[in-house]
Amino acid sequence: MVPHLTTAQTAPLLELEQRILDAMPRIEHWLRSQWQEHQTPFYASVDLRNAGFKLAPVDTNLFPGGFNNLNPDFLPLCVQAAMAAVEKLCPDARRLLLIPENHTRNTFYLQNVAALTNILRQAGLEVRVGSISPDISVPTKLDLPQGGELLLEPVQRLNNRLVLDNFDSCGILLNNDLSGGIPPILQGLEQTLIPPLHAGWAVRRKTRHFAVYSRVARDFAELIGIDPWLVDPQFAHCGMIDFQARTGEDCLAANVADLLSRIGAKYREYGITQEPFVIVKADAGTYGMGIMTVKSPDDVRGLNRKQRNKMSVVKEGLQVQEVMIQEGVYTFESINEAVAEPVVYMMDHYVVGGFYRVHTSRGQDENLNAPGMHFVPLAFERSCSLPDCAGRPDAAPNRFYAYGVIARLALLAAAIELEETAPEDERSLQPAGLPIST
Amino acid sequence: MVPHLTTAQTAPLLELEQRILDAMPRIEHWLRSQWQEHQTPFYASVDLRNAGFKLAPVDTNLFPGGFNNLNPDFLPLCVQAAMAAVEKLCPDARRLLLIPENHTRNTFYLQNVAALTNILRQAGLEVRVGSISPDISVPTKLDLPQGGELLLEPVQRLNNRLVLDNFDSCGILLNNDLSGGIPPILQGLEQTLIPPLHAGWAVRRKTRHFAVYSRVARDFAELIGIDPWLVDPQFAHCGMIDFQARTGEDCLAANVADLLSRIGAKYREYGITQEPFVIVKADAGTYGMGIMTVKSPDDVRGLNRKQRNKMSVVKEGLQVQEVMIQEGVYTFESINEAVAEPVVYMMDHYVVGGFYRVHTSRGQDENLNAPGMHFVPLAFERSCSLPDCAGRPDAAPNRFYAYGVIARLALLAAAIELEETAPEDERSLQPAGLPIST
Repeated sequence: MVPHLTTAQTAPLLELEQRILDAMPRIEHWLRSQWQEHQTPFYASVDLRNAGFKLAPVDTNLFPGGFNNLNPDFLPLCVQAAMAAVEKLCPDARRLLLIPENHTRNTFYLQNVAALTNILRQAGLEVRVGSISPDISVPTKLDLPQGGELLLEPVQRLNNRLVLDNFDSCGILLNNDLSGGIPPILQGLEQTLIPPLHAGWAVRRKTRHFAVYSRVARDFAELIGIDPWLVDPQFAHCGMIDFQARTGEDCLAANVADLLSRIGAKYREYGITQEPFVIVKADAGTYGMGIMTVKSPDDVRGLNRKQRNKMSVVKEGLQVQEVMIQEGVYTFESINEAVAEPVVYMMDHYVVGGFYRVHTSRGQDENLNAPGMHFVPLAFERSCSLPDCAGRPDAAPNRFYAYGVIARLALLAAAIELEETAPEDERSLQPAGLPIST
Repeated sequence: MVPHLTTAQTAPLLELEQRILDAMPRIEHWLRSQWQEHQTPFYASVDLRNAGFKLAPVDTNLFPGGFNNLNPDFLPLCVQAAMAAVEKLCPDARRLLLIPENHTRNTFYLQNVAALTNILRQAGLEVRVGSISPDISVPTKLDLPQGGELLLEPVQRLNNRLVLDNFDSCGILLNNDLSGGIPPILQGLEQTLIPPLHAGWAVRRKTRHFAVYSRVARDFAELIGIDPWLVDPQFAHCGMIDFQARTGEDCLAANVADLLSRIGAKYREYGITQEPFVIVKADAGTYGMGIMTVKSPDDVRGLNRKQRNKMSVVKEGLQVQEVMIQEGVYTFESINEAVAEPVVYMMDHYVVGGFYRVHTSRGQDENLNAPGMHFVPLAFERSCSLPDCAGRPDAAPNRFYAYGVIARLALLAAAIELEETAPEDERSLQPAGLPIST
């Protein structure tokens, strides 16, 4: 099922996608050379927004939590990519300890853990799920809504190793994004942590990611001869924000005004009549808390108590101090009249699937990663086959090829970002000024 | 569609497959370590025979010719594996020159070339098909039976490079098995030949492959604790055969007698009541010519003119001098009452699909790679997923996992075989005593 494009601006989109299709061998050759130079993250998911005139990533998640939403028909693709990823990062591994998020009551998330475990087992690994949640003090079987169950076991720290009963692994796969800081139990381990600790939100910043992405987008745009803006959302940064104490409002309002004016100039250049908007969100963290749509600097001044509460915390009660102001990209895709945005999943540097995030009560200019959203799995097709090259650029395989390209640009940016932010010795990582929870 | 097992000996088969399933993490770990040590061929296909009591490869093809028979649903798996193979063998390649077999009138084969070209293009390469056939002196469009067409262009030799008009590639992919010898136009090239020339039947010998396979099978059998014979067909070799001149009959008869007696001993050990048989085939070459089923040494004495003609030549009129006598493995799989044997396809070291070779007028003890055979695509599933681990070992995904394991053992044997037969300098390869055709 392919969403229908409801935008009137199909022409520039088709032109952009046609350019991506035409440049396919050049793009793949360039990406191959990039993967020779940069170590790909083990896995990632990228939220895209397709505005018709623009196709861009708006969030890159290095601890993807929706493997259960992928089309089961493409499971072999995940398994094959997982084999490649394991071969690169830990070829000698027989076992893998998977550490999930602590929210053990979110059954959607538990299904993701079950799906991910299944993929890794099919890739030939012995996988067990070790929880660092204080709620899990004994091995606990949790029922899954689709049937089956998931066994969570409490991890034990033995010197510098994390183990389970009768289970000592050389690698540990994190599916916990460390929004609440790096817990001491994960610090100073001698086992390989995948991804490394500095990929978690305790260290990562969205603005750093998108700064690298801008460089990648510039190189890519030059490669295929387009304006980088067509694939790159602009952004600004404010540190030292305290929504509760109402400090930092001036920085926010000034940056919103500046960014709206820059977007407005681009809209005029391309004859786009929509109203520019920006998204204000926490610079670290995930799960769609602390996000608002803004169309005027006035929108961020004099927030009421409810708005300030909403903006001031992200997951696990972490206070928002740093804020990203990101160019809003309209989503003009819809399924059954509901607004949809594509999410692309990757393991190693392979696109393994994706799905549409659909929200029935949200507008084209709103964040869709929020309560009430409804997921529709997207039967992701790979690429441009011969008959489709002759076909329309918005035919499903072609649209999905373009999505896979832009998602891989974000993945490449994440790879470079992780290189540039890697500590001298990851094992002694303890970033100054960041909250360390237990 | 999964063929039905018609054998009464389901017990040992289930036991063998159950052992393979149970040992899955150990097998995958062991295979991972093997791929670290040995360079995998770019692609391969392996013919398997499933006798119920025994599951073994009978032929390993390093120039697979049936990509068109794979389930199109699994095309993304081929594309992803092709990307991995290209990254390893020629990461800098933008273009690939594909050199097919010369039989340009075999439309089934042309569909294979089209399917392979499509896979490589989707992996992001510019691919053109260059023929070395004397029939192709100008660019020639050939219609494909399923629609579409294939463009064959005559290759040109410029110093030590093979090129087409406006097309110079750093790599050349051979889909020509060199049964007729290594043509001078392919000798001494500075471009990378994939697979290398010594993977062709001008150099390769089935007995050398199966000698390496026996070593691999022994290691594998030790790993999972089984009798190696359960996955390894025994064989013998006769050189200096001339079917037309009736020389070498004694060698053949003696080896047939010895092999039948060894198989008989194994059959008695396992309580198998079928009659042992052997397959006599050319030690070099393919396409199912020069193959006969033999149940007694008398069968190879006093062959009539028709039989001698059939045995004495393989593809491209090459005379058979060396013969392999291979343990016959019954196939007890059937589809709609027709006898079937599985063929597994691999790219790099990934299983990318497979199909059943089905022959409606052949017996369980006959070679199925022969005129009149009818192909049924096999919807290959990858592996043992959790619910299937709890399920019957002959459930489809489990059977296919076992097939994928045995096929990869043959692939590993081919990798080691190519290492051991590699000339000091492949580019000056000109094996003594082998026919060099033009």
